[in-house]
Amino acid sequence: MTLHSKMISMGDRAVIAAREMAKLSAKKKNSILEAMADEITAQKETIQAANARDVSAGREAGLSAAMLDRLELTDARIDAMVKGLLDVAALKDPVGTTISDWNRPNGLQIKKVRVPIGVIAIIYESRPNVTADAASLCFKTANAVILRGGKEAAYSNAAIAKAMREGGAEKGMPDNAIQLVETPDRNAVRELAQMVGKVDLIIPRGGEGLIKAVSEMAWVPVIKHCKGICHTFVDAAADIDMALDISENAKCHRPGVCNAMETLLVHRDIAAAFLPRMIERFKARGVELRGDEDTQKFDAAIKPATEEDWTTEYLDMILSIRIVDNVQAAIDHINTYGSHHSDAIVTTDEKAAKAFLAEVDSAAVYVNASTRFTDGGEFGMGAEIGISTDKLHARGPMGLEELTTYKFTVSGTGQIRE
Amino acid sequence: MTLHSKMISMGDRAVIAAREMAKLSAKKKNSILEAMADEITAQKETIQAANARDVSAGREAGLSAAMLDRLELTDARIDAMVKGLLDVAALKDPVGTTISDWNRPNGLQIKKVRVPIGVIAIIYESRPNVTADAASLCFKTANAVILRGGKEAAYSNAAIAKAMREGGAEKGMPDNAIQLVETPDRNAVRELAQMVGKVDLIIPRGGEGLIKAVSEMAWVPVIKHCKGICHTFVDAAADIDMALDISENAKCHRPGVCNAMETLLVHRDIAAAFLPRMIERFKARGVELRGDEDTQKFDAAIKPATEEDWTTEYLDMILSIRIVDNVQAAIDHINTYGSHHSDAIVTTDEKAAKAFLAEVDSAAVYVNASTRFTDGGEFGMGAEIGISTDKLHARGPMGLEELTTYKFTVSGTGQIRE
Repeated sequence: MTLHSKMISMGDRAVIAAREMAKLSAKKKNSILEAMADEITAQKETIQAANARDVSAGREAGLSAAMLDRLELTDARIDAMVKGLLDVAALKDPVGTTISDWNRPNGLQIKKVRVPIGVIAIIYESRPNVTADAASLCFKTANAVILRGGKEAAYSNAAIAKAMREGGAEKGMPDNAIQLVETPDRNAVRELAQMVGKVDLIIPRGGEGLIKAVSEMAWVPVIKHCKGICHTFVDAAADIDMALDISENAKCHRPGVCNAMETLLVHRDIAAAFLPRMIERFKARGVELRGDEDTQKFDAAIKPATEEDWTTEYLDMILSIRIVDNVQAAIDHINTYGSHHSDAIVTTDEKAAKAFLAEVDSAAVYVNASTRFTDGGEFGMGAEIGISTDKLHARGPMGLEELTTYKFTVSGTGQIRE
Repeated sequence: MTLHSKMISMGDRAVIAAREMAKLSAKKKNSILEAMADEITAQKETIQAANARDVSAGREAGLSAAMLDRLELTDARIDAMVKGLLDVAALKDPVGTTISDWNRPNGLQIKKVRVPIGVIAIIYESRPNVTADAASLCFKTANAVILRGGKEAAYSNAAIAKAMREGGAEKGMPDNAIQLVETPDRNAVRELAQMVGKVDLIIPRGGEGLIKAVSEMAWVPVIKHCKGICHTFVDAAADIDMALDISENAKCHRPGVCNAMETLLVHRDIAAAFLPRMIERFKARGVELRGDEDTQKFDAAIKPATEEDWTTEYLDMILSIRIVDNVQAAIDHINTYGSHHSDAIVTTDEKAAKAFLAEVDSAAVYVNASTRFTDGGEFGMGAEIGISTDKLHARGPMGLEELTTYKFTVSGTGQIRE
């Protein structure tokens, strides 16, 4: 059997599973999710043994300490995975809800109803807990999922998926609701991305290279979770203490994630009052600072920022700083160099806030708060499959609703078109 | 200047225009749309002269009578184009409306606000009136548009776009809000489809070949308007007179459009009572009938339907008919062979209706009405840019709302993440 026909069979099985899943009640789906959680707990030792094989192979292959850390399934991480499944079970099911309904003058009753997307393929890298996270969110929304994890976590992913399938099966989960691509052949990703009519959506989660490759080869819709080059703009009318706290939080709270700040923009009129204190705070936290010429005048330790800095997602304790003349210049900088993810203004000037909210073209735009809040949990969505940097279908945190689509149901009494 | 750099410049100009457009009030946009309509009226003779060049070139090139008809801009069609612009001006503007808003326990106020998508590229074939229709809907929703029409309508499209730009400019339309790709080079489509970061969405409108080519080469999101293989299922519990009227309407009212019926499914228990009368009605209307073995027994004129018939969009006075054993068999046939566009059940049995509505995986699912109603106007959306057969972002008729996306605005009082 060729890879192509193997993958097509997998797609066909997913389509059949998706049709069965669309008929499941919320209660039934939740009991299946709970059974998956129980089975992960029951198979904890097996999962950790599989994980130990991945970790030892990774160590031999020379994976970095950071990658080995991401790979490891400690007791705490297994517990978190189980808790994640139970949390998803407890969330409100969006499937079947009416988004809107109206009647037409000819008597037709139209409803726009939330339905599953169908078959979702998810391509991801190292962290094996994604297997449980992604599968549970797709299952909750009655989407069949085809998972393709990184080869460095192959044994771990297989063990987790097996436990979920076995737990689910006991409670009547449709066969093939959750499938895992186990072949290491990289062409499997291309097959998934080009499976028109079977795969309804492909979500690549990982580095820029993976996302670019998948979106270029894809014939099916893709939702991209790209980098976050997030800004905080300290306006002339900012409350300086608030600006200090927000900026420090946005940069230092967790620098390795996509909603962390990478560039600080400062209004020229507040620079002298704000920047020296801000620089002290960042230096105390060990942040490497790079600035434009005006910024460099404030501290000898500030290195020059190049054009490249404005478009770099450091994901690290590094920050670029630029002084700008007004709100419009801040907006223009963000729209030009940013990644349309999350950007904030700190100001007490309502007019400046309004312009910033209206004109910054990003998934989440903040006034007087840290960009670190761009997150499904923090937004109150309960869980997220990622943060979309695309504008189509889903933008920003993607929760359960964003894993659904809709259809129109139209009820009549014999209406025909004249 | 290479085609690539020409197209990139066009994309850059569109991005700048989109930012300007996002600031326009609804009133301003409407006055610009009205000015476009006035200018098309004022330049009617110039537009018709350009159209005459296209028609005469088309005649020389041997275009079919049907294609020449679609190409021609008669007085009535120019009037319809002008009326279309005024109708779009009169529609409610979705941009800036709040989709939902909520407060978080930490005091953050979150709003999900409707915003323009940005830059939309539209690839279309022969009918030059699409130039005005598509440009006006994109303009109304503050999206910059890049149009690429068929070469057979090149002079007509250029004349219409010029009139719209000149009319709009007088009322302050941002430069490059509407751009038309005038080069006949087919690689221009590839450039548009791969312009990541500039083109936010590409919509191919036309034949299957065009849509397939664009979606395979695209690196940016695509919304496809594919074929409609629409079904009517006459259930055992159907009102026969209603079923006759609905089926005749779905097939014969306008057979050349995507929401016309291509396959009639009939419950075995009602076949003897329903089919002879239905066949008479179709024969009287000149419909060619193709059926499965059971159906063929009802009339010698019914040709055998092959497997290929079930997946064919005739767009013509041809119909395939199949007798099925129950509702589930009808649902399975539709989900297997259909195109997920529009499908109807005729029944007085609520349980059958409910199962059909729930399980048929199509953009629009009907009970006791003709599939011909799948249309932005008939659904009350005011206008449509097409009917999406995709599931992501927009499904079914795409009106103004579907030409927008959203962003989250978050207002705080200094919140940071702990």
